[in-house]
Amino acid sequence: MEKLPSFQDVLDAVKRIESFIHRTPVLTCESLNRIVGTQLFFKCENFQKVGAFKFRGACNTVFSLTPTEIGRGVATHSSGNHAAALALAAQKRQAKAFIVMPKNSPAVKKDAVSEYGGEIVYCESTLTAREQALNQVIKKTGAIFVHPYNDARVIAGQGTAALELLEEVPQLDIILVPVGGGGLLSGTAISAAHLSPTTRVIAVEPAGAADAFRSFQTGKIIPSIQPETIADGLRTSLGELTFAIIQKYVSDIVTVSEATIVKAMRLVWERMKIVVEPSAAVPLAGLLENKTNGPQSRVGIILSGGNVDLENLPWSN
Amino acid sequence: MEKLPSFQDVLDAVKRIESFIHRTPVLTCESLNRIVGTQLFFKCENFQKVGAFKFRGACNTVFSLTPTEIGRGVATHSSGNHAAALALAAQKRQAKAFIVMPKNSPAVKKDAVSEYGGEIVYCESTLTAREQALNQVIKKTGAIFVHPYNDARVIAGQGTAALELLEEVPQLDIILVPVGGGGLLSGTAISAAHLSPTTRVIAVEPAGAADAFRSFQTGKIIPSIQPETIADGLRTSLGELTFAIIQKYVSDIVTVSEATIVKAMRLVWERMKIVVEPSAAVPLAGLLENKTNGPQSRVGIILSGGNVDLENLPWSN
Repeated sequence: MEKLPSFQDVLDAVKRIESFIHRTPVLTCESLNRIVGTQLFFKCENFQKVGAFKFRGACNTVFSLTPTEIGRGVATHSSGNHAAALALAAQKRQAKAFIVMPKNSPAVKKDAVSEYGGEIVYCESTLTAREQALNQVIKKTGAIFVHPYNDARVIAGQGTAALELLEEVPQLDIILVPVGGGGLLSGTAISAAHLSPTTRVIAVEPAGAADAFRSFQTGKIIPSIQPETIADGLRTSLGELTFAIIQKYVSDIVTVSEATIVKAMRLVWERMKIVVEPSAAVPLAGLLENKTNGPQSRVGIILSGGNVDLENLPWSN
Repeated sequence: MEKLPSFQDVLDAVKRIESFIHRTPVLTCESLNRIVGTQLFFKCENFQKVGAFKFRGACNTVFSLTPTEIGRGVATHSSGNHAAALALAAQKRQAKAFIVMPKNSPAVKKDAVSEYGGEIVYCESTLTAREQALNQVIKKTGAIFVHPYNDARVIAGQGTAALELLEEVPQLDIILVPVGGGGLLSGTAISAAHLSPTTRVIAVEPAGAADAFRSFQTGKIIPSIQPETIADGLRTSLGELTFAIIQKYVSDIVTVSEATIVKAMRLVWERMKIVVEPSAAVPLAGLLENKTNGPQSRVGIILSGGNVDLENLPWSN
């Protein structure tokens, strides 16, 4: 296994990416504080470039590459925020990004990648087809593969969000993070462990995609099989690297129902007047279900992203 | 006619309300800048308390009243943002607010008023019935009527939004404001005229409710009759006071189509990841339709509010 990223890697990431990313605001909301009975601090990565924290990790990776490496371009298979993030990060370094996407991906996702100058390579929608297509691209172009989360540079980049949050709001009792592949969670855990050791990092996961919860309980990676959740960013399995960090630094992983995720998402839209995607609402759902234990008078929440299909919202049926 | 509010009244309003209101952020968005080809600065009153700029004017009025006056409570007839704003402002001064609302108002509007401690007085939905009900309330309780816009204290309060905007972003070429009754527009115009005389204030209005446009063109108030627009905050007519200020200070009033309002609203949601109501999207619609003339490399836009029915969005049908 690759070496685990350190807090120094997060600090290096800050220097590398700070001129390219948004330092996103931390918002508060009295009415949500009243509803959950605690003080909430929302780190708004929905306002990050490409609309998600993913740009931090992609940017850190792209700008970590040598001139020779980046000259060959970068590649990934993803139809989500990582694809758009990698495309934009590559564009910022005048490099090519090859994005393998299933033919049947929503137009809005294809458009995002194209808008940031990414070259889309279409494939069938099975995992095998995606991996084959990616291997072909890499063979043909020599492009560097950038994994969406199981990569020390990506993890270090994602850790910069929690670093900014803790700089602005010290002495948090807990930080709540959604968990899919674990990139944001493990990066957050590294930053919190070094900047604020008494802050517990707790992951929240949809019950319909509870592979991280089960992996954490059993001590070995249990892959995500047929996940069913509206939180489309959280359907992936943990990686070796993210899991090792999670085991080392994360206090707890709890699960929430789909109904509570939708309720939490709607509360954020209505009370905070900001657009968040379902995955970003999962931590607040954890509070609404009273799933977190211990002191929590000051709670940080990372709102992971804001990319939603506005024509297909979960409360309009 | 009542005396026109002065810039000193706006300065007094700042002192009076600053501990009660949010100093809302000014956001920028590279992708919207690219689309309209200019630099935009959005003053986010959708993040204001009660979700709209209306809280500024209501708060200034409530805290301008003498102890004897406020002891009798305040009253208004409105089913919109002014109702919720007045209820909350009164609550902040431990006073009563009587809100006359049509029986058939949406539950979400009734709930907002109740949540802030307002006492709802139901009436039929005609204007006559509303005015009668209001007069009865005032006769019975002695409550002070607070007009939603045609009041110098309300106008001065609304002017604090543009004051904050110009403090944070000087040298704007234009400020774009939606116009309904003209409270926000006239307050903005007073602040801009004194803080930044070269900044032109331009109002944008739905073509389906173009009474302010016609009044401005003809030089006399033409009431809004059967307005048809999704921008529900902009269906009202100008008042004598707001019109006098508009004639004195506003550079132009332009109109936009319903389709462009919806397009602008969606762009703000998608690109900025924030929730704005249709009325708030009207100024951006003016830019999309190229309706504004003259130098405009730096454009301020007041996003007036963010209260929408999430189950009934204009693009989901």
